[in-house]
Amino acid sequence: MGYVLINEDILPKNEVSVDIEDRAYQFGDGAYEVIAVYEGVPFKTEDHLNRLKYSLDSLSIKIPYELSTLKEKLYELKEKNDLKNGLIYFQVSRGLAKRKHDFPSDDVMSTLIANTTELATPSDDVYNKDVKTIVVEDIRWSRCDIKSLNLLLNVLVKEEALKNGCYESIMQKDNKITEASKANVFVMKNGNVYTHPANNLILNAVTRLTLIDICKILNVSVFEEPFTTKFLKDADEIFLTSSFVDVIPVSMVDNQEIPIGEVTSKIQNELSKIIEIKISKAKNDL
Amino acid sequence: MGYVLINEDILPKNEVSVDIEDRAYQFGDGAYEVIAVYEGVPFKTEDHLNRLKYSLDSLSIKIPYELSTLKEKLYELKEKNDLKNGLIYFQVSRGLAKRKHDFPSDDVMSTLIANTTELATPSDDVYNKDVKTIVVEDIRWSRCDIKSLNLLLNVLVKEEALKNGCYESIMQKDNKITEASKANVFVMKNGNVYTHPANNLILNAVTRLTLIDICKILNVSVFEEPFTTKFLKDADEIFLTSSFVDVIPVSMVDNQEIPIGEVTSKIQNELSKIIEIKISKAKNDL
Repeated sequence: MGYVLINEDILPKNEVSVDIEDRAYQFGDGAYEVIAVYEGVPFKTEDHLNRLKYSLDSLSIKIPYELSTLKEKLYELKEKNDLKNGLIYFQVSRGLAKRKHDFPSDDVMSTLIANTTELATPSDDVYNKDVKTIVVEDIRWSRCDIKSLNLLLNVLVKEEALKNGCYESIMQKDNKITEASKANVFVMKNGNVYTHPANNLILNAVTRLTLIDICKILNVSVFEEPFTTKFLKDADEIFLTSSFVDVIPVSMVDNQEIPIGEVTSKIQNELSKIIEIKISKAKNDL
Repeated sequence: MGYVLINEDILPKNEVSVDIEDRAYQFGDGAYEVIAVYEGVPFKTEDHLNRLKYSLDSLSIKIPYELSTLKEKLYELKEKNDLKNGLIYFQVSRGLAKRKHDFPSDDVMSTLIANTTELATPSDDVYNKDVKTIVVEDIRWSRCDIKSLNLLLNVLVKEEALKNGCYESIMQKDNKITEASKANVFVMKNGNVYTHPANNLILNAVTRLTLIDICKILNVSVFEEPFTTKFLKDADEIFLTSSFVDVIPVSMVDNQEIPIGEVTSKIQNELSKIIEIKISKAKNDL
């Protein structure tokens, strides 16, 4: 069953619930983050905490306590749940108030919750199988840089992919590829890597930034610029990135087969190396 | 404190809460409706129930029981809370499941909640005072015809209006007026009424449809077509419509003063008449 963090307290899950007038429940009025954990070691916690702060600042939501305290509490939760491999999920809503669009008064505290999920290493399932995708229209709002709780379109297009026997939906806006339902999209063409620039149309995910760094290490040029759906389908290689699942090579876009290539594999290996170093460093520090 | 409907049960509010993994809480994965009640008589219940069904069908969310049963339960809740004037709020989420974008399995039941709010008649506050508005960018997703729980932008632009000493934000998309944060927008020009067509960019609200009917009764032509922000500011009259607050004459858009005119007043009176007839009919039926 496990424990859940709610505001100041870590409690057994069955003791935790939220009010129906919590603004996350009626407006999706909040933001969230997901931290990957490998062998008990959380990956890039600071980056996730800073991005939570960015999202909450963008929404004028107060974080209930210092980021350093939040980090301690998330780690305590991870220990208490004995999380080895998986995810720490946490979200902050604008809090509990009588339903009204207006922001509640200043004395209303935001609501923070966090829980953890144990996951198997995704290696076989995703890395070695056919990862088919479809292209769908990106009709989300224009502040996708905020990791908000308004995830309805992400949910709908993910389901559309599954219904079509695919793993993911890749979204296009005005014929330019933005991102997938829960991943960023990278394209390899003539030895270079292309991905959508980090503007208001995509989430500048922590794994996305890590991947760009890795490309630099590998001397692969990265162009953060919009590209067309045709460019995507003509790619030499395509991969998706997200927390924990990390690097996912794409084998098909709509009916277009995409080669699974060497560069994706190199990037994948480099990321595994970085994670391993991080794990062994964390263990040596203990 | 009052009672709350949760799925099959009407319970005291302090006994009702929802799980943090209810999909409304983490994805805004659901839809809602608000029914106005005048002197204990709910207004246009069937229309609201049908629109809930439209929203849920669009999202592939199952309604937990028949609409006729839902109606009975909402009325029972209204009686139990002794609601005279105000709102019945109800929402349906895709239910409780371990967090994952994919739809949960078919045996997961959706979660229905409903509560009521007693309100003073909004007459003095809104009808006779300066109702100032600002024009802001409509950057919402492109399925605003679904009355979903993804309301973050509506919340943000409402707050922006309040911060600027205004009552509402009127939204523009590609320089065409769509709607306000929680109301539809009607413009009078040269004796005709204009409002955005009921497509994917606005909510085809129950009060909006009632108003169009009233214009027909009053022999005022209604053009459901997009109009520019300049056309809005050059209007002879402007009014907003929403449940319970009904018809709200606008006195200012950004720095442009708008006359409060006769046609708005006629429409307002006609709506009051319809509501009164409905109330007295409902009371005679008892």
